[in-house]
This record gives sequence, structure tokens and C-alpha cells, in this order.
Amino acid sequence: MLTFLSIKRIESYIMGKRRLETCFSPALFMPEENRDSIVVIIDVLRASSAICTAFANGASSIIPVAEIEEAREYKKKGYLVAAERDGFVLDFADFGNSPFNFKMEKVEGKTIVYSTTNGTGIINMASSAYLTVVGSFLNLGAVAEFLKEKNRDVLLFCAGWKNKFNIEDTICAGAIAEKLMDSGLYYTICDSTLAALDLWSLAKDDLPAYIEKVAQRTRLRDKGLDDCISFCISGDFTGKVPYIKDGVLVSDNF
Amino acid sequence: MLTFLSIKRIESYIMGKRRLETCFSPALFMPEENRDSIVVIIDVLRASSAICTAFANGASSIIPVAEIEEAREYKKKGYLVAAERDGFVLDFADFGNSPFNFKMEKVEGKTIVYSTTNGTGIINMASSAYLTVVGSFLNLGAVAEFLKEKNRDVLLFCAGWKNKFNIEDTICAGAIAEKLMDSGLYYTICDSTLAALDLWSLAKDDLPAYIEKVAQRTRLRDKGLDDCISFCISGDFTGKVPYIKDGVLVSDNF
Repeated sequence: MLTFLSIKRIESYIMGKRRLETCFSPALFMPEENRDSIVVIIDVLRASSAICTAFANGASSIIPVAEIEEAREYKKKGYLVAAERDGFVLDFADFGNSPFNFKMEKVEGKTIVYSTTNGTGIINMASSAYLTVVGSFLNLGAVAEFLKEKNRDVLLFCAGWKNKFNIEDTICAGAIAEKLMDSGLYYTICDSTLAALDLWSLAKDDLPAYIEKVAQRTRLRDKGLDDCISFCISGDFTGKVPYIKDGVLVSDNF
Repeated sequence: MLTFLSIKRIESYIMGKRRLETCFSPALFMPEENRDSIVVIIDVLRASSAICTAFANGASSIIPVAEIEEAREYKKKGYLVAAERDGFVLDFADFGNSPFNFKMEKVEGKTIVYSTTNGTGIINMASSAYLTVVGSFLNLGAVAEFLKEKNRDVLLFCAGWKNKFNIEDTICAGAIAEKLMDSGLYYTICDSTLAALDLWSLAKDDLPAYIEKVAQRTRLRDKGLDDCISFCISGDFTGKVPYIKDGVLVSDNF
């Protein structure tokens, strides 16, 4: 039961502001709560970093596909295909999920078909939102500016790892949340957002040291795939904000 | 692919130690991963705090029931029934979910039937584990000592709120995790545990101030139910560690 005073307090707090929420895992995502929101997909190691890099290097569009067989069919049709499972490149694919694969000489002007363990399934899950964009440390400032200009409720959607919470996506959500909250345009009453902000406050002064402990770093290192981590946590590499249009990722400069 | 060196590194790290993990929501709980573990149910505001208080005040056992109708049937049979939904006492129940209800003069020597929005469903979910115990700030030291003596893998299972992450259960998990990690008997490669430890490190110097911001505090305040919060976050009120035996909560001193 909301008392008159508490309603007044909440009203005065949120008046004219947009709601900011964070979701830590695909298993916790509620599509029906976010139909009118902008959902920001965050999969720092490595899908959302790779996607931002591809657009920074001139890719024209990216077709996210969840199933391996679908990716294989696209390859037969002559598409450039990036596809991996658990860090390993699928045999028919042109390359895997490291941002370093998406070099300008390979991707400029191209449409890329893209399928990863976590990332692409989540992009498809979130496509029922008002707008779905891709966020990472690489486009941190751009994605925050984009969101502020659009003036909508925002859900920061962390990809996690096999439905589990992960730290690297959470602190990236915290970094975006900090920029949005600092703008004064948003409010949050979401514990996940508050926790993401707090973890980011601990991480931000020495991100490389903080990221040392996360489970995904160990997983990537054990497969010899950790060479891209310092790149993936570097901020503002690109002004591109990839978003979904008719099921395909495209990008505007921002 | 694990390299020889990485296997050696992991082996030397975990040799003889028990695994410590944390789960932030019932929607993320994997029963099959925890059949050999001790699962610690944490629902600080208010189920696990109320259960610890009941045993501290001499309750002999607590029967957790998930469904309202089941609780009503027990009432007809003459049991003492504590039952609430979303903070409100059910009409047929003797009292609700505030720890202050479980006073010695009411509960000493009694069996209590107990049904809450979150807590009891989760207790039943976790009952497939090797052992399920109830943790809170009120029995923090006792539960840590209990776990160390049992020498098993541990999952700290946060009840959250309607499947969402919450801060108060997470920092309580962090407080227990700190005691376990400090003992040198456990290892963790779980990002949720690492995040819980970090959030606890931010909260512990002034827990009442930290807890001010959490969503559940606002929910309880708006129903006039926040009087118990400062009690629920006070440490080591009791040496009791409630655990499930044949579907019923009982307790030992520790």
C-alpha cells in the first residue's frame, strides 16, 4: 500500500526522468517489461566488442544468427561468416569472435553473418524492445550520448555466461549507468543498477587489474584467446552505435 | 582447451579446498550442480532473518509451505501459522513475516508453519542439495563456523525478489563468503561470489547507510514494515543454524 507521502516522494524523484534498469542474465530478462524501452546488449568478452569493432572498421551490416546451421547456409550463399562456440571458430566460418578478426581490409563495406555462444541469441531475445542497441567499453561515450538523445527508458542487458552473472558485463553496465545518472535525465530504483554502479566505482581506477580476476578471463586465457582483453576494456574506440533494424544490425555515427 | 600449465595452476590453487559459489536469483539456480553441496538460503528482508529469530527464541521446528491453501489446512489442524504475501499477513494466519512476531512467548517449544512470498518456495527448491541451511546477518558467525566444520562445497543462494537480483541478500552472501575465504579452506572462480565480496567490502563499514538505497527497503517502508530492518542487518544475534531435515526446518546450536 503506497501512502500519500511515499507516492509524493517517488513522483518528485522521477518527475520527467526516464527509468534505468539492469538485467544480469538472459534467464532474468522479461521481454514484456521492456517493449517501450531501449535495450542495450552488453557482452564485453567478446561479442559486443567485436560488433562495435566491425562497424568502426566500416562493416555495412551484421546479420545475427543463433543457430550454427543457419550460419552455414549463409556461408554457402557467399556471405562473410563469423561464428564460434565456446571460443572456438566453427570449421566453415571465415573467422571467430575476436575483435581483431574484424579488420578494415576484411569487413569494410561488407555484410557479415555472425553467430556466437552468447551474444547473438541475446540480440534476438531483445529484439521485441522499442529499440535494441549494442554497448561495450569501445563505444561507451557514444552509446551514452545516443541514449540521452533518444530520451526513453533504458534496460542495460548483460549477456553473462551461459545464463550466469559475469563481472565484465556488469561493470560496463555500471560505466554506462554512471554517465546516464550523471546527466540527471534518469532515475533508478533497481538494485542491479545500483550494484553495477558500485562495482564500476571499484573497478574504474584500474580496470585491467580489476578484470584480472573474472572467470571469463581465465576461460579465454586457457584457450589462448585473451590477447584482446585489454583492447575490449579500452574506452571510446569508436563513435558508432550499432542497433537492430528489421532483424539486422546497422550503425550510425554518434 | 586447458593447457598443462593452466591445469597445474588451477590444481595448485584449489588443492584440498572446497568450492564456493553464489547464486543471485531462484531463476539462476541449478539443482543438478548442487546435489553434493551445502546450500545456504539467504533472504535477509525478511524470511531468513525471521527463521533465525524463531529458533533463537526457542521454536522447535518450522514447516515451510509454498502454497497458501496448504498453510490454511495446517491452521485448521491447530498449528501456529506465519504466512504473508508481498508483506501482508494472510487473513487466517497468526502473524506474518516480521522477525518481531516470532517472540519467545509465542514460539518457544512450538512447531510453526511458515509461508512467505519468496522464502519458502526457495527452501523447497534447494532441498535437493546435500544439506540446506538458513543464513542471515543474525547468524552470520554461526553459519560460517557450521560450514567450515562440515567441509563441503558451498552455494550461497540469494532469494532475491520475484526472481530479481537484490542487494541485501548479496551483501549478506558477501559477508559469509568473506569469512569462508579468510579461513583459507575455500576457493572461488565464481564472478557472483567475487561481486558479492566487493559489494560487502563497500557496505560493511556502514551497513545501515548502505542498505538505505535498496529497493526492498522502499517496498517495506511504503507498507509500514521497515521497523525490523536495523535488527535484520545486525550481526550475530544467535548461534543457531537452521537446516532442513525431512522437509522440516530444525536447528542446532553452533
